Amino acid sequence: MDTAYLEKLLYQVKNREMSVGQALESFKTLPYEDLGYANIDQHRNLRTGQAEVIFGEGKTPEQIAGIVSHMIKNNERILVTRADKQDYQAVMQTVPEAEYDETARIILIGGKPEPVKTKGPIAVLTAGTSDIPVAEEAALTAEYLGNEVDRIYDVGVAGIHRLFGRLDRILKADVVIAIAGMEGALASVVGGLVQVPVIAVPTSVGYGANFGGLAALLSMLNCCANGIGVVNIDNGYGAACLASKIRIGK
Amino acid sequence: MDTAYLEKLLYQVKNREMSVGQALESFKTLPYEDLGYANIDQHRNLRTGQAEVIFGEGKTPEQIAGIVSHMIKNNERILVTRADKQDYQAVMQTVPEAEYDETARIILIGGKPEPVKTKGPIAVLTAGTSDIPVAEEAALTAEYLGNEVDRIYDVGVAGIHRLFGRLDRILKADVVIAIAGMEGALASVVGGLVQVPVIAVPTSVGYGANFGGLAALLSMLNCCANGIGVVNIDNGYGAACLASKIRIGK
Amino acid sequence: MDTAYLEKLLYQVKNREMSVGQALESFKTLPYEDLGYANIDQHRNLRTGQAEVIFGEGKTPEQIAGIVSHMIKNNERILVTRADKQDYQAVMQTVPEAEYDETARIILIGGKPEPVKTKGPIAVLTAGTSDIPVAEEAALTAEYLGNEVDRIYDVGVAGIHRLFGRLDRILKADVVIAIAGMEGALASVVGGLVQVPVIAVPTSVGYGANFGGLAALLSMLNCCANGIGVVNIDNGYGAACLASKIRIGK
Amino acid sequence: MDTAYLEKLLYQVKNREMSVGQALESFKTLPYEDLGYANIDQHRNLRTGQAEVIFGEGKTPEQIAGIVSHMIKNNERILVTRADKQDYQAVMQTVPEAEYDETARIILIGGKPEPVKTKGPIAVLTAGTSDIPVAEEAALTAEYLGNEVDRIYDVGVAGIHRLFGRLDRILKADVVIAIAGMEGALASVVGGLVQVPVIAVPTSVGYGANFGGLAALLSMLNCCANGIGVVNIDNGYGAACLASKIRIGK
Amino acid sequence: MDTAYLEKLLYQVKNREMSVGQALESFKTLPYEDLGYANIDQHRNLRTGQAEVIFGEGKTPEQIAGIVSHMIKNNERILVTRADKQDYQAVMQTVPEAEYDETARIILIGGKPEPVKTKGPIAVLTAGTSDIPVAEEAALTAEYLGNEVDRIYDVGVAGIHRLFGRLDRILKADVVIAIAGMEGALASVVGGLVQVPVIAVPTSVGYGANFGGLAALLSMLNCCANGIGVVNIDNGYGAACLASKIRIGK
Amino acid sequence: MDTAYLEKLLYQVKNREMSVGQALESFKTLPYEDLGYANIDQHRNLRTGQAEVIFGEGKTPEQIAGIVSHMIKNNERILVTRADKQDYQAVMQTVPEAEYDETARIILIGGKPEPVKTKGPIAVLTAGTSDIPVAEEAALTAEYLGNEVDRIYDVGVAGIHRLFGRLDRILKADVVIAIAGMEGALASVVGGLVQVPVIAVPTSVGYGANFGGLAALLSMLNCCANGIGVVNIDNGYGAACLASKIRIGK
Amino acid sequence: MDTAYLEKLLYQVKNREMSVGQALESFKTLPYEDLGYANIDQHRNLRTGQAEVIFGEGKTPEQIAGIVSHMIKNNERILVTRADKQDYQAVMQTVPEAEYDETARIILIGGKPEPVKTKGPIAVLTAGTSDIPVAEEAALTAEYLGNEVDRIYDVGVAGIHRLFGRLDRILKADVVIAIAGMEGALASVVGGLVQVPVIAVPTSVGYGANFGGLAALLSMLNCCANGIGVVNIDNGYGAACLASKIRIGK
Amino acid sequence: MDTAYLEKLLYQVKNREMSVGQALESFKTLPYEDLGYANIDQHRNLRTGQAEVIFGEGKTPEQIAGIVSHMIKNNERILVTRADKQDYQAVMQTVPEAEYDETARIILIGGKPEPVKTKGPIAVLTAGTSDIPVAEEAALTAEYLGNEVDRIYDVGVAGIHRLFGRLDRILKADVVIAIAGMEGALASVVGGLVQVPVIAVPTSVGYGANFGGLAALLSMLNCCANGIGVVNIDNGYGAACLASKIRIGK
Repeated sequence: MDTAYLEKLLYQVKNREMSVGQALESFKTLPYEDLGYANIDQHRNLRTGQAEVIFGEGKTPEQIAGIVSHMIKNNERILVTRADKQDYQAVMQTVPEAEYDETARIILIGGKPEPVKTKGPIAVLTAGTSDIPVAEEAALTAEYLGNEVDRIYDVGVAGIHRLFGRLDRILKADVVIAIAGMEGALASVVGGLVQVPVIAVPTSVGYGANFGGLAALLSMLNCCANGIGVVNIDNGYGAACLASKIRIGK
Repeated sequence: MDTAYLEKLLYQVKNREMSVGQALESFKTLPYEDLGYANIDQHRNLRTGQAEVIFGEGKTPEQIAGIVSHMIKNNERILVTRADKQDYQAVMQTVPEAEYDETARIILIGGKPEPVKTKGPIAVLTAGTSDIPVAEEAALTAEYLGNEVDRIYDVGVAGIHRLFGRLDRILKADVVIAIAGMEGALASVVGGLVQVPVIAVPTSVGYGANFGGLAALLSMLNCCANGIGVVNIDNGYGAACLASKIRIGK
Repeated sequence: MDTAYLEKLLYQVKNREMSVGQALESFKTLPYEDLGYANIDQHRNLRTGQAEVIFGEGKTPEQIAGIVSHMIKNNERILVTRADKQDYQAVMQTVPEAEYDETARIILIGGKPEPVKTKGPIAVLTAGTSDIPVAEEAALTAEYLGNEVDRIYDVGVAGIHRLFGRLDRILKADVVIAIAGMEGALASVVGGLVQVPVIAVPTSVGYGANFGGLAALLSMLNCCANGIGVVNIDNGYGAACLASKIRIGK
Repeated sequence: MDTAYLEKLLYQVKNREMSVGQALESFKTLPYEDLGYANIDQHRNLRTGQAEVIFGEGKTPEQIAGIVSHMIKNNERILVTRADKQDYQAVMQTVPEAEYDETARIILIGGKPEPVKTKGPIAVLTAGTSDIPVAEEAALTAEYLGNEVDRIYDVGVAGIHRLFGRLDRILKADVVIAIAGMEGALASVVGGLVQVPVIAVPTSVGYGANFGGLAALLSMLNCCANGIGVVNIDNGYGAACLASKIRIGK
Repeated sequence: MDTAYLEKLLYQVKNREMSVGQALESFKTLPYEDLGYANIDQHRNLRTGQAEVIFGEGKTPEQIAGIVSHMIKNNERILVTRADKQDYQAVMQTVPEAEYDETARIILIGGKPEPVKTKGPIAVLTAGTSDIPVAEEAALTAEYLGNEVDRIYDVGVAGIHRLFGRLDRILKADVVIAIAGMEGALASVVGGLVQVPVIAVPTSVGYGANFGGLAALLSMLNCCANGIGVVNIDNGYGAACLASKIRIGK
Repeated sequence: MDTAYLEKLLYQVKNREMSVGQALESFKTLPYEDLGYANIDQHRNLRTGQAEVIFGEGKTPEQIAGIVSHMIKNNERILVTRADKQDYQAVMQTVPEAEYDETARIILIGGKPEPVKTKGPIAVLTAGTSDIPVAEEAALTAEYLGNEVDRIYDVGVAGIHRLFGRLDRILKADVVIAIAGMEGALASVVGGLVQVPVIAVPTSVGYGANFGGLAALLSMLNCCANGIGVVNIDNGYGAACLASKIRIGK
Repeated sequence: MDTAYLEKLLYQVKNREMSVGQALESFKTLPYEDLGYANIDQHRNLRTGQAEVIFGEGKTPEQIAGIVSHMIKNNERILVTRADKQDYQAVMQTVPEAEYDETARIILIGGKPEPVKTKGPIAVLTAGTSDIPVAEEAALTAEYLGNEVDRIYDVGVAGIHRLFGRLDRILKADVVIAIAGMEGALASVVGGLVQVPVIAVPTSVGYGANFGGLAALLSMLNCCANGIGVVNIDNGYGAACLASKIRIGK
Repeated sequence: MDTAYLEKLLYQVKNREMSVGQALESFKTLPYEDLGYANIDQHRNLRTGQAEVIFGEGKTPEQIAGIVSHMIKNNERILVTRADKQDYQAVMQTVPEAEYDETARIILIGGKPEPVKTKGPIAVLTAGTSDIPVAEEAALTAEYLGNEVDRIYDVGVAGIHRLFGRLDRILKADVVIAIAGMEGALASVVGGLVQVPVIAVPTSVGYGANFGGLAALLSMLNCCANGIGVVNIDNGYGAACLASKIRIGK
């Protein structure tokens, strides 16, 4: 419901180019397409600056395939996150060119765009090997949104020289995504070393008093270092969206 | 144990139409039927204004079928919530006309009554597609209790124009059931827009710091908007009962 | 942002009674008055059906008094909840006719309206004596909104005959507000006895494993009885708003 | 390490019936039999007044069978709780007369003793049908320990007349075990009605904000009624042990 | 609402000794006295076997004094728990013979009865010195209810020989109340040593990961030893009530 | 420990401009000044792009004043957050030109720099009046770091037209800081409306099931809208640091 | 109850140097002195290797002074932790030579012993200035137990060069105590750098999602680095005891 | 990044044995080997005193096998913890001599070294039979690190004589690892009996209010006994590392 849109409508009404009834009608129905079980947002791109992405978790393969086949009409690229193989198979029946990344659990349609290279890349760091699926969700999403990504994995602070060994690559980034489970200390240390915004992603990697990622989440929220924004546990996708908005403004 | 019932008993005793022993006996045994593993409440309808509904979770298919076959003697309509296919198959052996709604996980016997239409409908809103199973539990229950229902799905606040596009339908409702997982913000926004009671249903849809619906639950309990009552996580059935009591008084 | 209001605006623009600029302007500024630290909502009454009420907690006495002195221009009645004596003294300097209820911690301006009596009253029940402050917040708010209230206090289930002794009064109510701390079992028992909607208010009364009202809150959310809506811990005001919407539709 | 035992040892040493080395040795090894993975407590019966019971959860079928086959030498009756069918099959290979109760998940060896009838029974109450497995764990254990048990199931407070209909049976009991999931209000109401000790057992029956039995647990710990002791969630066995110690002193 | 009481009423109605209206009336009003803010339960003694005790927390000194002055008409002995000095001063104005125990925070009226000595005493154990206020609440309540009490303080398991040094006194008890904060291990060890029922009282003594008594509470609920019932954190009064019901049946 | 610094050191060693011992020494002592109780980081500015800020909470007034008087030697501007009046008075004894903002609880030394105006401002939004102290901590910090700030307060979603009335100002911002207590829904709605990064700050404003800001925190972490980074509860300062890094790169 | 002690007793009985009654008696009463509210453990030194220390929290000044004046008879050195000034004043009346450390909140009697210097010191590290009170509790306790301590404060990982600047001192230690609030990442980084045991002490320093030290506690329990033992939040004393046992075996 | 290593580098640069570029390069790449998904730390042994161990949880069998086949080049012994049979099969394809312990879920390569016997063993205690898998993870790890281990299983405090029967063996140990689920009281009792450091390992053994090991964890953190360090729930491996560092310094 952006002001510009409303203003244009008012002018059309004023100029008798549109009746009041039509104005009300268009106001209600234009920006999305109703499938009954889902309202496809055709204009979100314009409004919030990011293409439509389907969050696959909790949706049936049929629902996902249905949404994709409607969206394909107006979108060059579509991303389905938290998708399993069954979802992929359902999508492929309508959109055979769809690709599937098993580690990231993402269905990609339309291929990655040419990355914006006038800036430093988004550095995607993980503390351990087990955090890689979340990191790949972030990295693929960021690339799909037009970013260059530098993957720097398994650099947790328990062996801090591994992190320092990559410091030059990390310092070249425009945004850093720090992904860690267990105690999540990676975000604190990185936040104290770099000048750019850091997005911290707690993961559910761990056991016992980790409580499904709670330990890393609380740790990251309490970081002493400044300039750190935290997203939900395992939310690689959300981190990538924020990083992309910071780096290339959409 | 309503006063009227007690009064009648006392008069019968006074008028020697009933012995003291009989009075005590009837007092104890009348209002339910004992199956050993369950006491079927034949009078709850009279007492609390709603027909008997069986909560299927935690009961064996045999127990559910047993309860249904006793209740069928005194009830036109029976609803079994949280029922899976095995429960349905067990019930069908005794009551072959039973129907099953897979999304809502409800077994229906006796069909829906003619809805009371002198009032606005109950609007059932969901924030996302994944909340639909809870919404269908609510919608079917409400219809079964004699209400007209308007289903308005996938209108979460992250794309708030989708919600405003349905504002006219929402404003026609007499009661609104707002169903949302994730952060549950739908209830707050709707609560600020409508004049009628809003029943908020948090769902377990989400992941990570959602903690099985806790995030949405706390969010809804802390709504700034007035006039919102919250039910348990995923409790579409309970929301429908309350909505029906508000709308048609039973 | 109700449709009717928008429609009227569109017609005025169409009929050249209002310029597009004015329409946009009025759209932005009409419904509230900006004090810098607060936006007074002059139209909420029209929009959600309830008069403006000031939530005093977290506001300085100066802010409360400032908001009251602006609202008094357009409102006959004002209620300030969660107000302490200092807040009252600040308000009295501008509005000397303001009254203060110490138990309910409410400042009242304009007196209670004549109650709507065509319906049964709102029964406000408490489990114990210590729950009375929350109950009075609910009862006073409900009366201020035009309701008749029946106060039935200290009828907790540990001495269930006390509850049954008032059953006739409870059964006459159109809505029941059940207020309880400790284990909050009052809501369950009452919910099984009455036919009307029950609003459950957990209170922070208790100690130890009560965890500030969490025990009663969880208990009420898990009620086996149907037709119960729960509000936040100690939220007597919110319960009254919902009860009033159910009873007299505003 | 009871004083009497120590005193006897000291006298034997004093009277030169036992050397100091032997005393130390017997002190260490007498009261249990070491299987490597388990120390079978042959004297717990004497010391705490209850026969050895094997808690099956977390033990392999082989371990359970091994413990049983050692205990059978010194015990007439053995009970294995939290046992599944695999455990039962392993036990039967050594002790073919073992019986298995599927609802209670208990393996019984040696049959129930003649119950002590000079007192009122232990009343085992459940709020709902789904609480019955926990109730049967309690009831069978109590019977095995020599108690008379009165099972009163599905008498939850949402239909409180069902509870009152059994009040005469409940009032005859010497101890009451009140078992409930969901909001656990049964314990509060029963605690206010009876004069005898009440043992409250929260169950994990429920969903959403029940949090695996936490709601019922907190509710029971916060009971307004006096004289209620709470045991762990789903701990029917522990409730029976306490009830038996209260009723027949062992 | 005991059956005997109901039966007597029915006979009076049958014999025309009481009109139906009177019966209903007496049914409602007899068992308590309504002060507006409190319903004094004059018959609880008969019904649940224990004298009325006032829980002082959350009540104003005026309310406490008011309740006491009404109860004094029908009761020989009154106990006010969780009372501070202000409460005591308010009570003394009406009942000058009232006594106050500062450690236990209890107001006593009417003195302790002669204890029942045909049984072993109630042993009240604490793990540390800081647990004594809770222990005194338990001990005084138990004495007031007619029990003999043996106080055994500061016998926590970190110096387990202190506990064993009192084993003979502990083994003479008929019921043991084990009171402990911190990690609450006292209950586990005592539960494994004695044959009689153990009531475990977690206290809020501790800091950090104690979380206001949560650590001790969870520890006690998870006791491996059998026959242990747990009450709320710091609930010395409740433990004494249960102990007294077990020991002398009221 | 940036690479450039290390490289320079190595070259100096290679060129014999510095002995190995000196290199090690300078490596250790250069970047901070040790006061015993605090290590003042003279180079953090260079390393992470932000001037030194003192977090006042938990430090004594003496410690704060001591740190300030050392830092004043090398810094033009100093900010002390979470400072109370006592802290201010201690600081003023050494640095009389220090200013104090009571709402934000910030001590400012050196005045605000000329803001960078080539970009849109940082919009600081609050849901309610009670969130203003956190907002002022954010706004002052952001201004101190060289940013232009647009304060938009009391625009919570319960009266969503208040938010929409400021949409044009919000849409002009380069970064949005959304501050809300209670249920924190402001972040979700704003996140769906704007194209720029949103930093969500939960506040501890609220009561009951708010649990000290937990409700708003979980709500914000579970936002459906993309591109939202969350900071700790009440952490206005941290939000401003992140916003400034995003907007002007330091 | 150590074996040696028991063995000696048995020999004395055997050799008729002690009667059985005396043995039992001495067994019960020897190892502690009973003050009614406290059992002073005169032999703990022998048994667990550490002198008696009084935990002051929750004890009245009178109780503390009473315990001290009894212990002074058998002990050269006494430590009272968690003591405030009132406690100190009470102790000084009996033991005028007592000293008080206000930061550490410790009363010291008897002065520190000559430290064992054959080993590296115990390094006590804090992340921030606000953690110093906990650190001083640890450092003073360790010194009192005969250890050499190296205090290294304010070396949190957000400015990791401060930590590396002291690496040589840290690497000389035989045990490291890492004390940190907020997110507690210090323990992880230090644990990855040193070869010796690390004892991690979470502190309650922080706010918001720190939840009273929970964030740091969970972080430390989930450390990826090996060889880290965690103690309770703010438990500087416990950390020192463990460090001393590791370093000098008592 | 130890100082010695840095010093050597600096000298090589000074002596022109290494160019600045080489120094920087070697600084970055020497201490680990990058597999893309994992950085194998070839020098951790030197730096922290323990050989590389692979934490298997969350890694695919392929990743584990890949890491093992690289590590085998530089390591005599490798340990994979939290490994299931699939992991073992993958490893065996490259390293056929690998062994698998099913109870401990550990893959062992290279066999156990000759244990250091100049000290007392590490005593590994469990409270129950179900805690044995965690105990075996600890015991095997400790043996692999060169320690002698004494396994003492099923000595929980509910039958405290079982513990005392092994007191002589326990008292011979140099370090004690106390492993317990349920209420975790074993650590408290053992901590009060021994003079050496105790490492407490809470396990997830239990049910209901155990909350996945939380009860035992909190219990152990709140131990009254001194000198106890706690590790994460079920973290037998971490306990062994700490024990080994204490006992043999690595």
